[in-house]
Order: sequence, then C-alpha cells, then structure tokens
Amino acid sequence: MKKLTSPDIRSIKLDDAGFFGHFINIVRDSVIPYQWETLNDRVPDAAPSHCVENFKIAAGEAEGEFYGCVFQDSDLAKWLEAVAYSLMSKPDAALEATADDVIELIGRAQQPDGYLNTYYTVKEPGRRWTNLRDNHELYCAGHMMEAAVAYYYATGKRRLLDIMTRMAYHIDSVIGPEEEKLHGYPGHEEIELALVSMYHATGDPLMLKLAKYFIDERGREPRFFDIEAEAREGARRNRRYRDPGDYAQWHRPVREQDALEGHSVRALYLATGMADVARETGDETLLDACRRLYDNLVHRRMYITGGVGSSPAGERFTFDYDLPNDTVYAETCASIALCFFMRAMLGNEADGRYGDTMETAFYNTCIAGMSLDGHNFFYVNPLEVRPEASRRNPEHRHVLPVRPKWFGCACCPPNLARLIMSIGRYIYTVDGSTIYTNLYVAGDASLHTAEGDVTLRTETQYPLDGTVKVMASAGKYSLALRIPAYCGGKYSVTLNGTPLNAEIRNGYAVIEREWADGDCVILTIDISPRRVYAHYKVQNDAGKVAVARGPIVYCLEEADNETPLGGAALPQSSELSCEYKPDKLGGIFEITADGTVAVDDGDDSLYRSTPPARKNTKLTFIPYYTWANRGEGEMTVYVRES
Amino acid sequence: MKKLTSPDIRSIKLDDAGFFGHFINIVRDSVIPYQWETLNDRVPDAAPSHCVENFKIAAGEAEGEFYGCVFQDSDLAKWLEAVAYSLMSKPDAALEATADDVIELIGRAQQPDGYLNTYYTVKEPGRRWTNLRDNHELYCAGHMMEAAVAYYYATGKRRLLDIMTRMAYHIDSVIGPEEEKLHGYPGHEEIELALVSMYHATGDPLMLKLAKYFIDERGREPRFFDIEAEAREGARRNRRYRDPGDYAQWHRPVREQDALEGHSVRALYLATGMADVARETGDETLLDACRRLYDNLVHRRMYITGGVGSSPAGERFTFDYDLPNDTVYAETCASIALCFFMRAMLGNEADGRYGDTMETAFYNTCIAGMSLDGHNFFYVNPLEVRPEASRRNPEHRHVLPVRPKWFGCACCPPNLARLIMSIGRYIYTVDGSTIYTNLYVAGDASLHTAEGDVTLRTETQYPLDGTVKVMASAGKYSLALRIPAYCGGKYSVTLNGTPLNAEIRNGYAVIEREWADGDCVILTIDISPRRVYAHYKVQNDAGKVAVARGPIVYCLEEADNETPLGGAALPQSSELSCEYKPDKLGGIFEITADGTVAVDDGDDSLYRSTPPARKNTKLTFIPYYTWANRGEGEMTVYVRES
Repeated sequence: MKKLTSPDIRSIKLDDAGFFGHFINIVRDSVIPYQWETLNDRVPDAAPSHCVENFKIAAGEAEGEFYGCVFQDSDLAKWLEAVAYSLMSKPDAALEATADDVIELIGRAQQPDGYLNTYYTVKEPGRRWTNLRDNHELYCAGHMMEAAVAYYYATGKRRLLDIMTRMAYHIDSVIGPEEEKLHGYPGHEEIELALVSMYHATGDPLMLKLAKYFIDERGREPRFFDIEAEAREGARRNRRYRDPGDYAQWHRPVREQDALEGHSVRALYLATGMADVARETGDETLLDACRRLYDNLVHRRMYITGGVGSSPAGERFTFDYDLPNDTVYAETCASIALCFFMRAMLGNEADGRYGDTMETAFYNTCIAGMSLDGHNFFYVNPLEVRPEASRRNPEHRHVLPVRPKWFGCACCPPNLARLIMSIGRYIYTVDGSTIYTNLYVAGDASLHTAEGDVTLRTETQYPLDGTVKVMASAGKYSLALRIPAYCGGKYSVTLNGTPLNAEIRNGYAVIEREWADGDCVILTIDISPRRVYAHYKVQNDAGKVAVARGPIVYCLEEADNETPLGGAALPQSSELSCEYKPDKLGGIFEITADGTVAVDDGDDSLYRSTPPARKNTKLTFIPYYTWANRGEGEMTVYVRES
Repeated sequence: MKKLTSPDIRSIKLDDAGFFGHFINIVRDSVIPYQWETLNDRVPDAAPSHCVENFKIAAGEAEGEFYGCVFQDSDLAKWLEAVAYSLMSKPDAALEATADDVIELIGRAQQPDGYLNTYYTVKEPGRRWTNLRDNHELYCAGHMMEAAVAYYYATGKRRLLDIMTRMAYHIDSVIGPEEEKLHGYPGHEEIELALVSMYHATGDPLMLKLAKYFIDERGREPRFFDIEAEAREGARRNRRYRDPGDYAQWHRPVREQDALEGHSVRALYLATGMADVARETGDETLLDACRRLYDNLVHRRMYITGGVGSSPAGERFTFDYDLPNDTVYAETCASIALCFFMRAMLGNEADGRYGDTMETAFYNTCIAGMSLDGHNFFYVNPLEVRPEASRRNPEHRHVLPVRPKWFGCACCPPNLARLIMSIGRYIYTVDGSTIYTNLYVAGDASLHTAEGDVTLRTETQYPLDGTVKVMASAGKYSLALRIPAYCGGKYSVTLNGTPLNAEIRNGYAVIEREWADGDCVILTIDISPRRVYAHYKVQNDAGKVAVARGPIVYCLEEADNETPLGGAALPQSSELSCEYKPDKLGGIFEITADGTVAVDDGDDSLYRSTPPARKNTKLTFIPYYTWANRGEGEMTVYVRES
C-alpha cells in the first residue's frame, strides 16, 4: 500500500499578506494571549475556566475543588498546541517560557503511575477508568498528546512528549485485549488520531498498537459500554434499556458503519483516527470504511458551507438529506474535525475531492466560527437566522445571531486557533516524486520527494482571486495541482507563459517534467460567481438557490438587504455581478443581483387569497464567513429562485 | 352592556346524517366506552390510567398509591362531561347508571371540609394548596365543575353539582383577597370558565366572585407564584432567578396583556374565562383585553388550520408570524380551547369573525385530532411531516406521522370527545330578537327570543356543500346568518325562492321580518376550491400556497402523490378541480391540479450547478382532517407555487 507523506509543518512558511495571513495574525496576536488570560481566570466578563487552577490543585500546589467540565484539561492542551504552531512560524521567547512553565506544572500534576487528569485526581481519585463512556479521560489525554507532539516539533523539547508517553504506557496498563484489562475505548474519540501523531513523533509501536486497539474494539459485542454501565450503575440500572450507542459511534464495529452517525465531532474524530490507522497499518478494510463514510457525508449529510450536524440535540447527524438551515447545529469543531479527516484521507490517497471538501469546510464554517477581529466565537453556524426566533422560539435558542465572547465549555475557540495556526500541514502531500497541492496558500515550501528536495514558492490571493502562481526549483518531479470541482472544468494552466494541457488524475492537473529553477506555473481557476442547487431530496432547499464564488459560499444579510429575507427571490435570469469592496468586512468581493422582495401591501390578514405584493430590489450577497460582524440581523444562505 | 345568550344545548337536536353526525356517533359509540375502559385500566395495550382507582383509594375503599399525572382526576371529569352531552342527545340508562355510580364514588372521595383532589388526598395530604403554580388542584376542580354542570343539565341530578359547590366554598375559604387567605390563582387556568358555568347553573354569586378574583389577581405585583415558590423552596431557591411568568400567563395583569403567550392551552382557557367574566360583569376593560388577544392571534399567531402553539418546548406560542410547519406543536386541546374562547366572545358580541375562527379550528385541527374510526388520537397537528424526520431528527420527535392509540397523559382525546358531543352549544347566539347562526349544522333548534319562541330547522351538508336551507317558524325576529370571510363576498340568499339583498352587519347577513311558518331561507356560500397565501412576514410559507375549500384546509399526502412532497410545485396558472369521492376517507371532495415534482435526474451530487430536473404530475389534495388514515407517509399543507 502506497502512503503519502505530509511535509513537516516547519518547512512551510506562509506569507503574512495572504488570505490566511489575516487569520493567522489574529490568532497569534489576539486569540492565543486572550485564551491564556481566560485559562487563568483573568478575564472579568468571561465565564470562569479554572483550567490552570485545576492543574495547580492536582499538583498539590493550591487548595480548592475541581471546577469546570470533566474535559476542562483539554482547553490547556489546545492552547499549548496552538502556541506550538505559533512558535514554529514566529519565535516568541516570552510565550515559550510561559508554555514551558505550564508544561512543568502539568508534569507535577501527573501521578506517580503516569496518570494525568485533574478531574479524577482532584475530585474522584478512586474512580479512575470507571466511566470511559462519559468522562473524557482518554479524550483529554489525546489532546495533550497532540500538544506534546506539536510542542516537540516546535521547540525540540521533549518534556511534554515524555509526560504523555508515560500516560500512554499507563493507559496501556489499564486498557487492552488482555483478560485483566478493560476492553474499552473512549466515549469521545480523539486519542486515536493523537496516538498516531505520538507514533510519528516517538516511533514507539505501543502508540500505534493502542490506537488500533481503540479502533478495532469499538462497537464489538459484548459492548464495553453496556458492561461498564452495568458495573457502575448495578441495581439502579434499567436492564430493559439498551443504549443504541450511535450517539458515540459504538452501535456497531467501525468497519461495518456506513454513515457518520451521532455526535458529529466524535464521529469525525473517529473517522480521522480510522484513516490514520489505515494509513499506518495498510488496512484496506478500514480505509474502505473511511471511503464509505466520506461518500455518504458529501453526498447526503454535509451543508453547502461544510457544516455538519443537523440537530442541536446531541449535536448530531440525523439522516440522509436532512439539512435544516435554521435549526441546524453545524458546530465549528465539527467542521474543524472534517478538515482533520480530509487531511488523514489525503495521507492515504491523492483524491482531489478530499481537498475540495477540506477547503469548503475551512473557508466557510471554520472561519465563520470567529469574528473578523478574533474576539468572538460561534459554536453553531446556521444557514438561516432570524434573531427574534433565536430569542423566542425554543427550537432556535441554540442559534445565536451574534458571536458571544467566550463559552463556559470552551471547545471551539481553541480548536479553531490550533487549526488556523497549523494550516501549513494541510497544503501539500507527497507521493514518491509527485507533489500534490491540496490548498492554495501564498508562501514558501521545502519538500522532500523520492527524487530529491524541492522548493516551491506560491503567490496567490486565492480564494479572493482565482490565479495561483507557483515557482518551482530544479529537479525531476511531478506537480499535481488540485482542480476544484466547483469550477466545472473551467481552469487553465500555463508553464512559463505557454498554455499547457496537463493530464487530470483524480482531480489534480499533473505536470510531470524535468523542472528548471524559476519555472513558473500559473493556474487560473474560474471563480466567477455561480448558483448552487441542492439535491432534490433536500427538502429544506427545494426551490432555492445559493450563491458562491470559488470555494466561498455567500449569504444575504439584513445589513445589506430588505427583510424578511425569507421573502426575497432571485430570478433565474438575474446576472450575478461581482465587485471588490476593500473597506467592507476586511475586504470582500460583494455579489449583487436584481431580485424581488415581498412587501407590505396594506393587507394585514394572516391568510389571504392573493400572494403578497412584491417589489424589485437589489440583492447583496456577502461571504458567509463574514456574516454577523455588523450587529444583529437576519441572515440566509439560500434564497428562493423565481 | 348587551349580552348575548346561548340556547340550552338540550333545545338543539342535530341530525344524525349531517357532517357532524359521523363524529358524534363515533364519540358516543366508540370513544366514550373505550375511554371508560381506559379510566378503569381494562385496556391491555394502552398506557395505564389508574384514574378511577385513585378515587377509590382517596375514598378509603382500596389500598394503594396514587398513580398518574398530578391532574389525573381531570380525565374522569372530561369523560363525565362527554357522557352528560351524550345523554342529552340520546338517553342510555346503563351509561347513566355507570355515571351515577362514579359520581357517588367522587362524593365519597371528597374530604369532610369539601376538598376534592385524589393526588393530594392520597399522596401529600399535608401539602394541599402549597403549589398552585404546578400542581393543578384548581384545574382539576374546574374540569369537575364543568362535568357537574353538564350532568345536571343532562339529567337534572344535582349530586355532582352539590359536590363541586362544596369544593367551590372550600376554595373560597382558602383563596381570596382577605389577609389570611392565599392571594393565588391557578397555574393552569380552566376553573375561571368553569366557575362561570357553575354560576349559570346554580345562580350562586360566590362562583362569579371567585372567577373574577382569579382573573383580576393574575400577574399582579407582588406576584403570588414568586411568594409561593419562596415559601415552598426556601433556602433551596435561587433568589437571583425571576420566573418570567409568561409560560402560564402571570407575566403581567391580564388587562395589560396584548398577545396570547406561553402554554397555548393555558392561554386560551384564560382568555375564555376572561371573556366569560367580562360578559357576566360588563367589564369593558376586560373585554377590550380579550379583543386584543383575539386580534393578535388571528393576525399573527394562528396556523391556517386553526392550530396554535408554534413550539413543542412549553407547548407554546412563540412570537408574531412565527409559524413553522414542521416543528409546530398545534395541540388538539389548544384548538379546542380556541373554540371555547370564540364561543365566549360570541357571548359578548355578535361578530362573524369569531365564528369564522371557530369553524376553522373545528373543521381542521380539532377533528384531525381523531382518526376517522375514532380509535387513535393526535396531540400534535403538524402542517408538514416527514416520517423519517419524526424518527431521526430530535426537533421533529414530537411530530408523529400516525395517530397513536392513547396517551399516558390523556388530555386531548377526552377533551375532543366533550367538544364534539357539545357542538350544539356553538351554533346559535341570541341577542334580543336576533338569532345569530354561527355554525351551519343540520338539525332542529328551539330558541327563546325577546319576541317569543322560535323553531328553526336547518338542512345542509355543510361544509361538504355550500348550501344551507333554514325553515323558520312564525314570528317577528331577525335571522342573522354568518357569511364566512373565506368566500370573499361570494354568496347568495333567497327567501322562499326569491333573491334577497340582506344587510350585512358584523359578518352576518341579517334578515329582519315578520316570519310565516315554513318560510324558507336558502343561503349559498361559494366553497369552490381556492388558493390561500400567508402574510409576507410568515417566513415558513414564503413562496408557498395552500389549498382550501370552504372552511376545510387541504393537504398533499404521500398516499396520493409523488415524494418528496417538498419538491412539488403548483403553477399559478393551474386550475383546481374538485370531485366527490364517496369511497375515499369516509367521503371527501378531492381536489386535483396539474403540478410538477422534482425527480431523480441521475445526478447524485449533493450540490450542483443546475436545478434538479422536474416532471409534470397530478397533485392530489385531501382534506387536512383526513390525513394519516392510510398508514405512514409524508404530508404537507403548503406547496411551493411556481
């Protein structure tokens, strides 16, 4: 089985000025420092975190009770991971010293047997490993392992890697196939993918063995979580109740799962772990399962924005073609997890569709999770919002019309921070002497191929612009440029100014040649505004259309349009015009079109014999990721087509 | 202030063969006997009731614990009330003997001080009147009072009336303006309207005084439920939390309320009580409040089907123009309560709009609550159903695609039974020498007017047919026939075959004359199929149209149409054809029209650049009240107009 490699993130230097530069700078300059204040409870008007304090108490250096969610430790882990990526791209001695200090604190909070978890250490010391289903011990360990690996790559310092290696050995002493061990797996997946990272960083086969065990054991009969619940709840247990298990993906063995089910973040972390383990072990049955999950997702369960999770109850997937726009969940973390899954799939096979899905999730739901100034965050990313419904209809209460400052359960903001800071990991994959470009990001890359080292310089304003210029270094290798499916084949490639008919292979235009230094490839992708329609079985979108430009989905917002937005209609014949607005929303291409909107015609009857009057109007669309940056108002991605 | 009178239900004899006859016969022959078996726990596959058993335990005639909801007693009350109406229209000695027996049991369950409530008597004898907000003591008393009045009218027997009079005196000893009494009111309104009925039946002014007290006290500062909660919860209470109170309509004094808020059944029972008290006391400020509540309701908060309550969370009203079709609540009981409110308003003033609203609620949501065979019942009456969503999307879980047999909380079925059996009470109101006909129902009526007694014979198949024939008796009086707004002024009246230009007054065609015996008025209302559009602010219905015929709203059902129904479209130019189908769904007028439906065009992409292909189809509409009688399938009231 062929494997693709992903270049070391340290070998990718992104330009500050590119589209990503803005987001990276915000995270570095604003999110990471703010988050540290939050973790230390120094932000007066934010929800208390107590996260660092919990570690101090666990280390015996402070008095007090554990406070926060059972997975509170993971907030610190995600922060450390984001810090590590930040240090890779821009050294900061003070920040590194702060991180070193808190890593030492983590070390002191680790128990003599290697166990690390402040909730159990402080609050229920005798109850470790009694509730894998609900209590996130393995999840927190996974996040800290990811932080450990990133921090090791960033600084060369092994301290956290060693701490988490000890924790992995402790876990292996408690969980595994041996009769005396628990035959368990995490109730919230995450550690599977983290253990594969640990395997890469340490080379220790125990890491891969544990990851594979968690994947293989999941959902097997007799089901571990039934046995665990019986042991925990005993006489209190309702024995007639059988947990369907799909909420946390233990309804059947993973190789027999055909669709992502249940809690969407869990499901996608699991899928990522499956793809990672498949890559390392060459397990084709596992990879086949990943392909099935992906196919079902992109054909039946993903919002046009790359959002996933159709229901707030369980933050979960529901069923095929069920994509309500207004009661949606579409958690930021779930789209982040989708990026992880796509990256893991690209490690298994070069298929441009994974890149397409990854960029859809990234440029829409992921970055919509953060306000343009980096101070406010969405968990839920709706495709249709009426502020009064959010306030007064309980089914819409989870859909916030403006991003709040921070959350008591702070999963999305730090998760988004680490994704943005590590975007360099998502750009390239290398297979032998072929370099696959999966995202178009301005910057410099040094890549190892089977035929030797290659440096590439990319200049582009993508996705604001459809032109990508790549300057190659000398050598014999192939450059495979992802051609996004959205362009419908409308693209062109030139080499040193001469048009080139590059072969298309699995969604990539492949240029195989002996390169000379300074060879310049220009890829031009048609990103002109276009209409997008949903499959006819998506009832919520029937008769409606969305507008997109390149990978960026657009929306109507009350600040630019007459309300109610539900009354707007876009005639099939209207042209979509596009204009750059440098001073609007950080600089956007605004799309306008002639449309109509229902208006007050003086008849206040609730039900009437003639349709409400309409008038002509100009419909103004803005990029979805920029919505809710101008106060509270209605928003919709889909508009009725007339 | 003028008052209208409502004739004694015993003076109205409905034809068995009319549209109502079917429903009345079902309730008498099927629902009432079945319900009695249920109340006695003799239906093996239905949820246990324990209702009669609770009374036996309270009477000291059985051992055991109270079982059921805190308002379980009300099930027996509603059954007794339905029985009373049934006995009025068709004597049944065995049924009456059963009722007499259970009334004696109720008497034995009454406590020496007049208190009657099996929950408190059996389960918490020391805690009476400590939780008026949640525990339904007054609600149960109200229902039993309604039963007592109906049974007294039906049989002349005062036993239950006396029992409930003693209970009313007991309540008066506990609750009232005097310093030593509780300054309370019910958490679930119902007793207000019941006390007015008791006042009519007994003439005892204490009944009206109590009803007025509950109305006047509600929502006043300091708010009783805050004080009660403080007393009950003491130290456990979160003192920073202030209950908004709108769920149960105590957010402000009733005369200051502008819209029906909160739990929709509660809100409409309160509105009914307000209208009843306004009628009895001549209180114009109270009547004004009722008018405001009504205006807001019909202009902003009522479904086209007469359903009310936009959210299942709290079974409640949400906000103006928020009428989701698929996550709706629209409880059967709420539309029943709306009929009560309209009847009470018609007791205050002759306004055809109240009759219009009443018949909309009755012919659509109310009777849709019951299967055509009377064996199964809906609580929730959606306007759009996808069975898979009901099973797999938590926001749709309350929306059942088929009527279940009975419910553990059995409020709707017996409530519907009593409404149907008492429909005679809703037909006429009399003001001096004017007889207002508010519903068109075949049968005979004897009415007292200021100018003497009148008998009317009505022959009609309304609403299946638009022709109503009324034969009058001799005398000088006015006949005022409600002209439904839906006909848009398309109606005609003849007197003994000669066209008549009757004056229209407040929605009624008024014929004022000296009648001769056998004078025959024929009213013909245009009920040809029509399109109905919602107000432009109802976002869920934007671009959509509904089909109706007379007061009956239609729907598309999967049994007759291609799915997904969300993909169907009705061109603006399509003609609506209507045909009687005697063997379909108990005999209906089916409406058909040329339409289109989205189809599988071979492209399985979730998002695509062209709209899904469409094909021509015949759209078949059936009356909404007949849906879900042919197994599980999709249903929609609104269809996209193209």
